[in-house]
Amino acid sequence: VLLCCKGLERGSLLLPPELVQNRPAAMLTGPNFAHEIAAGLPAAAVLAMADATARAALMEALRTETFRLYGSPDIVGAALGGAAKNVIAIAAGVVIGAGLGENARAALITRGLAEIARLASALGGRPETISGLSGLGDLLLTCTGTSSRNFSLGLALGQGQSLDAILSHRTTVTEGVATAPALLARAQAAGTEMPITEAVTNLLSGAQNIPQTAAALMGRALKDE
Amino acid sequence: VLLCCKGLERGSLLLPPELVQNRPAAMLTGPNFAHEIAAGLPAAAVLAMADATARAALMEALRTETFRLYGSPDIVGAALGGAAKNVIAIAAGVVIGAGLGENARAALITRGLAEIARLASALGGRPETISGLSGLGDLLLTCTGTSSRNFSLGLALGQGQSLDAILSHRTTVTEGVATAPALLARAQAAGTEMPITEAVTNLLSGAQNIPQTAAALMGRALKDE
Repeated sequence: VLLCCKGLERGSLLLPPELVQNRPAAMLTGPNFAHEIAAGLPAAAVLAMADATARAALMEALRTETFRLYGSPDIVGAALGGAAKNVIAIAAGVVIGAGLGENARAALITRGLAEIARLASALGGRPETISGLSGLGDLLLTCTGTSSRNFSLGLALGQGQSLDAILSHRTTVTEGVATAPALLARAQAAGTEMPITEAVTNLLSGAQNIPQTAAALMGRALKDE
Repeated sequence: VLLCCKGLERGSLLLPPELVQNRPAAMLTGPNFAHEIAAGLPAAAVLAMADATARAALMEALRTETFRLYGSPDIVGAALGGAAKNVIAIAAGVVIGAGLGENARAALITRGLAEIARLASALGGRPETISGLSGLGDLLLTCTGTSSRNFSLGLALGQGQSLDAILSHRTTVTEGVATAPALLARAQAAGTEMPITEAVTNLLSGAQNIPQTAAALMGRALKDE
């Protein structure tokens, strides 16, 4: 089963490959706007699958002159990056919307990836997968593409609009709104601290406002990177 | 000696901390536009120093309510990220200038960081430092800041202008132009492959044009991430 979807299942909190039973699962993911690939522009993606032989065969079958594949045995890490990046994109939007600046956005994206990498480790994946195409690469697209639903939702939140008001004007799904609390719950079950995911969850639920959230993130004990 | 500069010395190809002799060296680096810090906006940076006690003391001395420091023992990795990101910023500009799209830019930035991480390992640093504030974080600022000299130089190259024509209109230094060949030479001496740095070097020297460079990058043998 070649999975091309992203996210966590609500309720079970499972990632797509964790939902596949009794069949070998593979995952295709990365920074891929479909309209660019359809136009023949160059792109790269990850083909994640435990079995190295089947993985190499799938990579050869799916590659084209303009679509370059990288292999990875880490299907959990690849699935986690694609789900979690939407939460970081919301946070990045909040920072810009609230006028906190480019330094804060760059720091928040970097530290956001670090906490996702910690969860990847806790779930049996590899932290370095999160620095790859399925994590960082996909996040770059989400945070630079002006049409990102998650980034623009964060932007509106940062400008002071309420979540209800923002969602009432949308007919599309903004994945990160459901992903943030699910990801936080999964992290808590795994014993992993995710301060940025927690901040986004608290902002979305109304439990904290932006100054409280920013102060909580900046006031944490100093530590190594 | 607390180092706040970035780059490789031409000729010797040494990083700033490698140039400090007979004194303990520390490095302060990260995604920090000075004007934002001066305005009191929140920011984070890395304080890299081998000695843990001195590092912790410096971190406490330099932190403020809006300036958050993370420690790292990896001074070589921190110095390398700050130098190499200018080369990736040029490459990202070329991709956008040549109309190759957002997918290609995201892939190139991600794979660019991967090759810098390989060199960090070869030089005795930690690859994960490159995914942190001094590498990825600083690169995000360079590639999103519209005023980046390196990104805008790549953009003009991608649009077909010659390097001489671009530089003749500039009164400021575009660091990546000198860093690319120096970084490539340092990588070759360390036995590390850096295909994106090599591509930028070849573009800047006129040894390859953009279609040749893109084809060379896309046509490489498939491999694991």
